[in-house]
Amino acid sequence: MDYQRVFSKAIERLHEEGRYRVFIDILRNKGAYPNARCFAGHNGPKPITVWCSNDYLSMGQHPKVIEAMEEALHDVGAGSGGTRNIGGNTHYHIELESELADLHGKEGALLFTSGYISNEATLSTLARILPGCIVFSDELNHASMIAGIRNAGCEKHVWRHNDLAHLEELLAAADPEAPKLIAFESVYSMDGDVAPIADICDLADKYNALTYCDEVHAVGMYGPRGGGITDRDNVADRVTIIEGTLAKAIGVMGGYVAADQMIVDVIRSYAPGFIFTTSLSPVLVAGALASVKHLKSSSEERDAQQASAQTLKAMFAEAGLPVMDSTTHIVPLIVADPVKTKRISDILLAEYGVYVQPINYPTVPRGTERLRFTPGPTHNEAMMRELTDALVEIWSRMELRLAA
Amino acid sequence: MDYQRVFSKAIERLHEEGRYRVFIDILRNKGAYPNARCFAGHNGPKPITVWCSNDYLSMGQHPKVIEAMEEALHDVGAGSGGTRNIGGNTHYHIELESELADLHGKEGALLFTSGYISNEATLSTLARILPGCIVFSDELNHASMIAGIRNAGCEKHVWRHNDLAHLEELLAAADPEAPKLIAFESVYSMDGDVAPIADICDLADKYNALTYCDEVHAVGMYGPRGGGITDRDNVADRVTIIEGTLAKAIGVMGGYVAADQMIVDVIRSYAPGFIFTTSLSPVLVAGALASVKHLKSSSEERDAQQASAQTLKAMFAEAGLPVMDSTTHIVPLIVADPVKTKRISDILLAEYGVYVQPINYPTVPRGTERLRFTPGPTHNEAMMRELTDALVEIWSRMELRLAA
Ligand SMILES: Cc1ncc(COP(=O)(O)O)c(C=O)c1O
Ligand SMILES: Cc1ncc(COP(=O)(O)O)c(C=O)c1O
Repeated sequence: MDYQRVFSKAIERLHEEGRYRVFIDILRNKGAYPNARCFAGHNGPKPITVWCSNDYLSMGQHPKVIEAMEEALHDVGAGSGGTRNIGGNTHYHIELESELADLHGKEGALLFTSGYISNEATLSTLARILPGCIVFSDELNHASMIAGIRNAGCEKHVWRHNDLAHLEELLAAADPEAPKLIAFESVYSMDGDVAPIADICDLADKYNALTYCDEVHAVGMYGPRGGGITDRDNVADRVTIIEGTLAKAIGVMGGYVAADQMIVDVIRSYAPGFIFTTSLSPVLVAGALASVKHLKSSSEERDAQQASAQTLKAMFAEAGLPVMDSTTHIVPLIVADPVKTKRISDILLAEYGVYVQPINYPTVPRGTERLRFTPGPTHNEAMMRELTDALVEIWSRMELRLAA
Repeated sequence: MDYQRVFSKAIERLHEEGRYRVFIDILRNKGAYPNARCFAGHNGPKPITVWCSNDYLSMGQHPKVIEAMEEALHDVGAGSGGTRNIGGNTHYHIELESELADLHGKEGALLFTSGYISNEATLSTLARILPGCIVFSDELNHASMIAGIRNAGCEKHVWRHNDLAHLEELLAAADPEAPKLIAFESVYSMDGDVAPIADICDLADKYNALTYCDEVHAVGMYGPRGGGITDRDNVADRVTIIEGTLAKAIGVMGGYVAADQMIVDVIRSYAPGFIFTTSLSPVLVAGALASVKHLKSSSEERDAQQASAQTLKAMFAEAGLPVMDSTTHIVPLIVADPVKTKRISDILLAEYGVYVQPINYPTVPRGTERLRFTPGPTHNEAMMRELTDALVEIWSRMELRLAA
């Protein structure tokens, strides 16, 4: 057995496909987002503009959030020092869980160290607890949901993206007595489209299935209180489990699920990914708490962000750039080739000080490689104009197609 | 399908076995550990002494750590805003990875959001990348390692805890051509015993196996630079992959692996639990960086902690309390009954203001339920004396056996 050969082959494959990833080394400038510093070259940090952050509303830089974190840091220290069961359950955790339960109109909520592990742990545990459970999974579900469903080792059916007829076909064909779980996202983060949640819930009622909705890209962003698409569409009470992250619009780090007290208690008591890990640092929890509270009563950030996204989409379309038909705050430009996507991103960084990461497989399907822009409330029109002009210049330089 | 019934049965089972977990609600007082406040009752916070934190060296309260976190908070903000590949790769992450690689004498290191996910992601990815891989797993390995091995879906053999003869028997019986991975911990956190790492590496050499060592409870704690048992025993270069946490002796939150550059690159490029999740908050990374650096050059905290542990073990033994034969900083008292263990813990909290969590199944095997004490550098002799007296009183009140 030649281990080195296997490992180096695995890396070579990525180079051959043009999808070996090089991480760009950046530091954001607090209070001056989207400005940041890039440490890529060797002659000191270079100023750049960030266009691909998932801190959509810049809440990670909000004075209330920073202040709350500073206070917690001085009050209790850096880490929690234990799992939730053994010494790591602080008053902050309990407060944030009750705040999140309220945000989604649920009886309870449960914190995890990330959105990834909240999906993995909850889906795998639920499907294991329900004997013979069948999971129905949207084909574009996030890797963390796929991991949870796979790790449950249960029967699984994948329905075509947002295709209700296909979902119903699969539900109707399954054993009526078997426990069923329909798993989907509200906002699909790479295409920017939205699930028909009410219709999915109608099917769930008809076939007696539980529903699981990943609101990772919608929490803080939609609905009068930032409760996500389920809040905006007034369907939170129809979804069995709502999952979210504290790392995107909330601006900090961590994940959670919100549901009936009984389900929360089952996950709390049985999920290894919840039980056997140090709880979130109280510093992060304090920051997330301040952010969630703020976004419950302020729509200013949401409105400004939506306006930015609309403006950028319109500019791209007008310039003939291949902007995808996104109905949300996400602005994807399709390039459909991993090498070209990377090349455009490299030119933007080197020549224009613009940072936007190329998105390739396995994050999106092969052949749909793209640049994904996430303009925030602080990206102004002048910045958008410069960006659009730069892209048009690169598009012609690389002889890519512009719409007429 | 009656979902409520299945869920409530699952919870009932825990109550019946006396292992339904109630989280105690606490806040540590920064700078005054082991003092903390407990919010259990309804008449305001009550002062308590914490005896079960895994922030073993109180580094979570160290001025250098707090200062570094405060600085990062003001320099870059609360969260990283993205995955490592998409916008979430900061200069702090790169620095900490190189610091951790150096700590373990490895070419590279890779950060994860927790020790749990570093084990799960690395083990499952490694075993999937190596076709036909067989994993040899110590029977007391942590739940996160078990999850990773299980999720790899590969052949797995469990060897009796620290039993080299059994490990060799299993290695000898396996296909000599198959890739092999031996997975174990250095310090077993619930018993406090240590793996014979050099001997395991001898077997790995003989049977051409890779080795994976979880140093979660040893990093920062052992070795002249705090590199763990592999540092103390001078065998780090013989272990293929060393895994650690930033949440215990380092005092913050997060996890990592350290290994050859090639292996780090494979995990970085293929592990879903690394790729598809927001990177650690730069605030945490900055704190961990300060902590790791400090513990590389200062042995003061380690020495004081070891002295505390020795003193407490001696006091317990002298008083006839059933202290386990631990060779490390962990001080377990065996009760061997989940209900009694919980009862003792409840009395300690209610009557003595002492917080020590009962440890029951699934954290330890059934029939070995225990109280697990982790005295730190700031638990003084008077506190230990009070604790020992309290335990002796409770032991007689509950008619438990004391040694002569
Ligand atoms: C749809 C979706 N779900 C879950 C996650 C994971 O959340 P987190 O970054 O908090 O781990 C992500 C992205 O990271 C995501 O895009
Ligand atoms: C042996 C061992 N490995 C891994 C972990 C997980 O580390 P973390 O708390 O950083 O997730 C723990 C405890 O939490 C542990 O005891």
